[in-house]
Amino acid sequence: MFLDQQCPRPMTNGASDTLASSFQEVRSLTERLCAPLAVEDYGVQSMPDASPAKWHLAHTTWFFETFVLAHRDQTYRLFHPRFGLLFNSYYNTVGTFWPRAQRGLLARPTVAEVFRYREHVDAALLDLLREKGTRLTPEVPARIVLGLNHEQQHQELLLTDLKHAFSCNPLRPVYRERPSAPSSATELHWRHYPNGVRWIGHDGPDFAYDNEKPRHRVFVQSFQLASRLVTNGEYRAFLEDDGYQRSEFWLSDGWAMRRAEDWRAPLYWEKHDGAWFSTTLGGWHPVRDADPVCHVSYYEADAYARWAGARLPTEAEWETAARECPVDGTFLDSEQLHPRPASTSAGDGPAQMFGEVWQWTASPYVAYPGYRPLEGALGEYNGKFMCNQMVLRGGSCVTPRSHFRRGYRNFFAPHARWQFTGIRLAKDS
Amino acid sequence: MFLDQQCPRPMTNGASDTLASSFQEVRSLTERLCAPLAVEDYGVQSMPDASPAKWHLAHTTWFFETFVLAHRDQTYRLFHPRFGLLFNSYYNTVGTFWPRAQRGLLARPTVAEVFRYREHVDAALLDLLREKGTRLTPEVPARIVLGLNHEQQHQELLLTDLKHAFSCNPLRPVYRERPSAPSSATELHWRHYPNGVRWIGHDGPDFAYDNEKPRHRVFVQSFQLASRLVTNGEYRAFLEDDGYQRSEFWLSDGWAMRRAEDWRAPLYWEKHDGAWFSTTLGGWHPVRDADPVCHVSYYEADAYARWAGARLPTEAEWETAARECPVDGTFLDSEQLHPRPASTSAGDGPAQMFGEVWQWTASPYVAYPGYRPLEGALGEYNGKFMCNQMVLRGGSCVTPRSHFRRGYRNFFAPHARWQFTGIRLAKDS
Amino acid sequence: MFLDQQCPRPMTNGASDTLASSFQEVRSLTERLCAPLAVEDYGVQSMPDASPAKWHLAHTTWFFETFVLAHRDQTYRLFHPRFGLLFNSYYNTVGTFWPRAQRGLLARPTVAEVFRYREHVDAALLDLLREKGTRLTPEVPARIVLGLNHEQQHQELLLTDLKHAFSCNPLRPVYRERPSAPSSATELHWRHYPNGVRWIGHDGPDFAYDNEKPRHRVFVQSFQLASRLVTNGEYRAFLEDDGYQRSEFWLSDGWAMRRAEDWRAPLYWEKHDGAWFSTTLGGWHPVRDADPVCHVSYYEADAYARWAGARLPTEAEWETAARECPVDGTFLDSEQLHPRPASTSAGDGPAQMFGEVWQWTASPYVAYPGYRPLEGALGEYNGKFMCNQMVLRGGSCVTPRSHFRRGYRNFFAPHARWQFTGIRLAKDS
Amino acid sequence: MFLDQQCPRPMTNGASDTLASSFQEVRSLTERLCAPLAVEDYGVQSMPDASPAKWHLAHTTWFFETFVLAHRDQTYRLFHPRFGLLFNSYYNTVGTFWPRAQRGLLARPTVAEVFRYREHVDAALLDLLREKGTRLTPEVPARIVLGLNHEQQHQELLLTDLKHAFSCNPLRPVYRERPSAPSSATELHWRHYPNGVRWIGHDGPDFAYDNEKPRHRVFVQSFQLASRLVTNGEYRAFLEDDGYQRSEFWLSDGWAMRRAEDWRAPLYWEKHDGAWFSTTLGGWHPVRDADPVCHVSYYEADAYARWAGARLPTEAEWETAARECPVDGTFLDSEQLHPRPASTSAGDGPAQMFGEVWQWTASPYVAYPGYRPLEGALGEYNGKFMCNQMVLRGGSCVTPRSHFRRGYRNFFAPHARWQFTGIRLAKDS
Repeated sequence: MFLDQQCPRPMTNGASDTLASSFQEVRSLTERLCAPLAVEDYGVQSMPDASPAKWHLAHTTWFFETFVLAHRDQTYRLFHPRFGLLFNSYYNTVGTFWPRAQRGLLARPTVAEVFRYREHVDAALLDLLREKGTRLTPEVPARIVLGLNHEQQHQELLLTDLKHAFSCNPLRPVYRERPSAPSSATELHWRHYPNGVRWIGHDGPDFAYDNEKPRHRVFVQSFQLASRLVTNGEYRAFLEDDGYQRSEFWLSDGWAMRRAEDWRAPLYWEKHDGAWFSTTLGGWHPVRDADPVCHVSYYEADAYARWAGARLPTEAEWETAARECPVDGTFLDSEQLHPRPASTSAGDGPAQMFGEVWQWTASPYVAYPGYRPLEGALGEYNGKFMCNQMVLRGGSCVTPRSHFRRGYRNFFAPHARWQFTGIRLAKDS
Repeated sequence: MFLDQQCPRPMTNGASDTLASSFQEVRSLTERLCAPLAVEDYGVQSMPDASPAKWHLAHTTWFFETFVLAHRDQTYRLFHPRFGLLFNSYYNTVGTFWPRAQRGLLARPTVAEVFRYREHVDAALLDLLREKGTRLTPEVPARIVLGLNHEQQHQELLLTDLKHAFSCNPLRPVYRERPSAPSSATELHWRHYPNGVRWIGHDGPDFAYDNEKPRHRVFVQSFQLASRLVTNGEYRAFLEDDGYQRSEFWLSDGWAMRRAEDWRAPLYWEKHDGAWFSTTLGGWHPVRDADPVCHVSYYEADAYARWAGARLPTEAEWETAARECPVDGTFLDSEQLHPRPASTSAGDGPAQMFGEVWQWTASPYVAYPGYRPLEGALGEYNGKFMCNQMVLRGGSCVTPRSHFRRGYRNFFAPHARWQFTGIRLAKDS
Repeated sequence: MFLDQQCPRPMTNGASDTLASSFQEVRSLTERLCAPLAVEDYGVQSMPDASPAKWHLAHTTWFFETFVLAHRDQTYRLFHPRFGLLFNSYYNTVGTFWPRAQRGLLARPTVAEVFRYREHVDAALLDLLREKGTRLTPEVPARIVLGLNHEQQHQELLLTDLKHAFSCNPLRPVYRERPSAPSSATELHWRHYPNGVRWIGHDGPDFAYDNEKPRHRVFVQSFQLASRLVTNGEYRAFLEDDGYQRSEFWLSDGWAMRRAEDWRAPLYWEKHDGAWFSTTLGGWHPVRDADPVCHVSYYEADAYARWAGARLPTEAEWETAARECPVDGTFLDSEQLHPRPASTSAGDGPAQMFGEVWQWTASPYVAYPGYRPLEGALGEYNGKFMCNQMVLRGGSCVTPRSHFRRGYRNFFAPHARWQFTGIRLAKDS
Repeated sequence: MFLDQQCPRPMTNGASDTLASSFQEVRSLTERLCAPLAVEDYGVQSMPDASPAKWHLAHTTWFFETFVLAHRDQTYRLFHPRFGLLFNSYYNTVGTFWPRAQRGLLARPTVAEVFRYREHVDAALLDLLREKGTRLTPEVPARIVLGLNHEQQHQELLLTDLKHAFSCNPLRPVYRERPSAPSSATELHWRHYPNGVRWIGHDGPDFAYDNEKPRHRVFVQSFQLASRLVTNGEYRAFLEDDGYQRSEFWLSDGWAMRRAEDWRAPLYWEKHDGAWFSTTLGGWHPVRDADPVCHVSYYEADAYARWAGARLPTEAEWETAARECPVDGTFLDSEQLHPRPASTSAGDGPAQMFGEVWQWTASPYVAYPGYRPLEGALGEYNGKFMCNQMVLRGGSCVTPRSHFRRGYRNFFAPHARWQFTGIRLAKDS
């Protein structure tokens, strides 16, 4: 099992046992993900946006320590008085924090110390659940559930950042060798959706982030959505048609970025003797045409769509279509982390909505009407990033399965490429 | 009369006379705006986003030369073979262009040469209208009308950029001395709007930019809108409540920018012996509490709104409310360019929707559903900027009056402060 | 006559008349140098190291106002209270100053105002000389003489900076058209000098900067010096031998700079249809093989020398050789500012020691043993730059003739190229 | 014993045994220096100028592999084909190299692999000495001796860079705890030296770098030299006299750097409750007045000297004085690496010439007259850095004792502070 964690659900009183067991599962999966790493691998920060594995391990722990243990009990004794400084990510309200770009400078605490930190906090939290289980205010389990979802996001980031770090090393380290599997893409067809007022956003008792709410109405124009993702082969045609040299396909900021960074292909692609190769968590391999294209920025996704005579879907369009799809996912062969499962029958809906790559939408990340951030410091979790980011939908091959939700809103800056991000096309109808 | 130019309308065949007269009016107004300038003032570029007055004069001329004269008649002889390089702003399709940040390096052509350039192109264009008037394809007058609207946008930019250049000079140059007039602000109240599907966007035969179309339906939740703009006095209360030191009001990118740039007040505000002063086109004067706050970024507008327990309106909300307002405007006293007109009775709608300051909305600048950019190079006019910008509505004291439209979509990056930008609040209902 | 000003000498009491006349000559020459300029040309700053012509005109005036008029008479009324801020270059002791890189932002004062500033200060200074002539403390004429030498340095800088500004303009402005003259280079031979203790540095009553003193002994090893400067033709052979691609000739910092800036030839050289052209004050012309190579950095001069199997001379070597040469100069044909004078008979010494290009030496700019900077703020004139700069000797085609001195020490950073800098070779003997 | 390695001497034929034993001593000392490190400590690069410990371990090994093993025997099989790319520092002639600033990105090779690399190369080199000992060309032992001196320089750098890395970590890691020892400074007096021609530079059969030769004559003016180093207490008086706020003491570049970096004290000094503390390899401790001031840049050293009414010595002056001193050293108490030895009787010469801190001289680092770099790639060792650097003399508490030489020329950029650099004063006589 790999990142294939059931999403823990908010608990009613008395259900502490279930929560404790979810807690242990999520926490231990994070550590199992690190099993292939050398001690040296835990510390590398290959760019300001990425964090060392060690930092992810400690930060997720700090989250529970700060927002559950210390929040609930002011007599709780911190594991280390300076870890708040080091492992707070961006919560201004909680205190100052270590500069993000300098997370790689911290040789100490050592990996072993970070694992001790995890043990300490895990024990304290399980104690809390055990002893106080029936008398906990509802806030405590809610915060624990949030912390578990948070940790699962960092499970994905840990692998994403590690891939970037490995890609910067000419020795081409491998995270986990996997056998290659043949792949083939289905033919692309267009699915039509009529216009109308749609209900968008999360509803019901299950966990969702604040940014997925409230459920609200949106008038969606009629549109068409591609039945599957754009493939490497299709994207290569864009390259070969000089897509990276023709400004007419690009947004102004995208073109400026492409030139400044000299982008010529998706991140991790390298041309070698006329053929394209790519870094994966399973090593350096030829790019396979049938796989979904991955590691493209919003700018590239948008330019590709314009070149293809199409556009990217809005998030309301995507969510409208997702309503007809099963919420499950397959995994990217190109990462070789998993044997590709038998293709799920997508019923009437489009395929590959979950589990291959995050799908850039044409929608900037803004608050839903009536949005209310969480109270206090946790309000910084999502709300303060609602500017200069684009929404992604779906979920990738390294996303924990329980994070696949029709209403899930991931978001990144339009130039970001190191996430597992790809393209689904849309059209006016 | 000042920037108070009627918007020329697209012409039917035979209406060349009216178009010629509109052309002459717009072009000569641009030059009259330069009357107070010393030769030295025309060349200064005080930051990469701003352009020298000379460049505005030449670029608007290049627009007509390229997109009307040379486009129509391939035998047209360019005034100067290198002016395309120098005065193309950003049209990749038309050729390479001089780096934006280096427009201030160009001592040559001299101001006199630029005025000769204007004369030359004006004469050629009027000739075209005179001789070919009745036989022109519809494209020609449409392009001329676009060019006139384009030039009017640059009339506003010319003054905006000049204000910035003057603000950088410790000698405090004055564009035009104006007598000070007393001002007072009305009490703020909230206007309620019910939810429902609204038609948004431009309709009808009058000129509008491509980005204002097509007219389409949007579901707008119920909301409240402030009856007037936020004043300097109200904004000062935010300052005095440590608004610039409290991260909880700010977007993450906004807070980073505030710290990097050490913002402590709106652009142009300076504290002197405990009182706030501000650069205006009419010189350096005390900040007046009753005037609308101006020269704030989106980040500041958004932070102010959160501090005030409110939010910014979406562009659909703003347009919904604008439907009830007269389309006219008053002028900022603080600029002292105009005596303040008698306050217009705003009827049932909110006041100050047009003519004081551009109003930041909560809406990122994206394409309307079904958006089609203009064909060819002119498609670069608006479409390629639909990323990383926020929509502003209304119009400012330096906006030509014919640009006041309920559907007009201005847009700037969220950190931009040198435009005449202010704040109107909204709330959920 | 062009920059061909006799160096004013320090005055004994009673010689105010001569000083007044020198003052008028130098000051009026500066203004005559500006005669070919359009008003727009005065304001351009094409890079942080260069200054606008207007700034040179005002700064040299500020120098007299501050260090003579206001220094002497505390009741002297400044022409403008803010000109000190604007036109102080780098004298920390005198007050804060406008950031060097932003001198081009100052549309105001206008050119006319700067000329009025000059008139005002000139009149006050001449009054002082006239009325107080016989009773002046020796410090006053000494400071005036320093100010005149200072102004002459700025005469050279004014043209040097103007050339750079013009070179950045695709319209290729011309400072002064001059007829082309044929040129030819003599054969290079090596002159031998034996080792021994030499007296180096300025001596005698004539004016010299503090950094040329005190006269002191240096042990100079035996060496050889090239009989003339390196020519464009010789330098081209270095280019054609891939001199700019072969790291083995370059200093580490030089190689890093060459790569960062993508240097491929001297500044101002451009290849056009296979032939090299170059910006000159006389316009854009083919590079002539027989002219001395100009506008090379120290890094390029040093790399060239290593490629040529030689090295650059130390300043003591250069000064040792200069002792045998007449102190006069010819002018660069390539600038076309002057008809080339009949070649002066150089006697036994090397040719072209003065008046073509400044000659990079291998000597970092440091204090002479026993060096004493001037007292007070004027001590900042030279001393504080004695780090990270290399000494240049000789003088260029735009150096006022009275600045040709055997002991003159010019200095610039090793990457500087916009000065009229060239190469003379040396060798161990 | 600590860094207290006898300098191996160049071998005559047949002395391979001695060389082998020197080789083993130097190589094993490097590894013993790493004994206190956690695996995580080996990889950190806290700034572009500093390198990870792991890189030092591998680079010094690469030096022997490239310049001895592979140079001598073209059939030598490299330990790893990509280690040349990773561990070449700056030898352009030998191939491309990994960007210096990104040495910290390399999680792989692991520390264990680097130690295997060392074992492999050590074995091959010892084999070479054992088998070919008597038949080796003189070049091989000469290169081995160079490699050993090179490795000793990296022993110092390893500790220097580690100190910097530790100083960036708020957990304040300790390299090696040492007991504190009392310290006291002797009274400063001035020693006089008459003028005259002096012989400067290395002579004799012992090892020296190419930049220390050839021995040559310099005319040295009479001067005075301080009998000891400047202490922390003396330097604190400079701070308290606003030395960091008064531009009149500073070189222009130094002042700009001080402001840009906001220097307020030597590197590693932090004020805490009114008292100064400092990072040392032995932890974070109060600054002790009697210890020599350390971790100052050339700019600070020069400014301090000017404030103190003195100046820095030239390297010729320093070497002249060093002739009278014993070549041994004491160790900095403030680092607490060593108990301070009984003060050596300095005879007639100044004290503390070796073994406390490197001493900034007033001499830019340039070639000696007649300087010849080593042949081939090894010529890049020293020569190409002869620009923009200042010479330091003496040796520090982390310098291997065998590197103490009267003619040794260390060099760093004038802004460098992370080396163990201090101040000795001089004066004109």
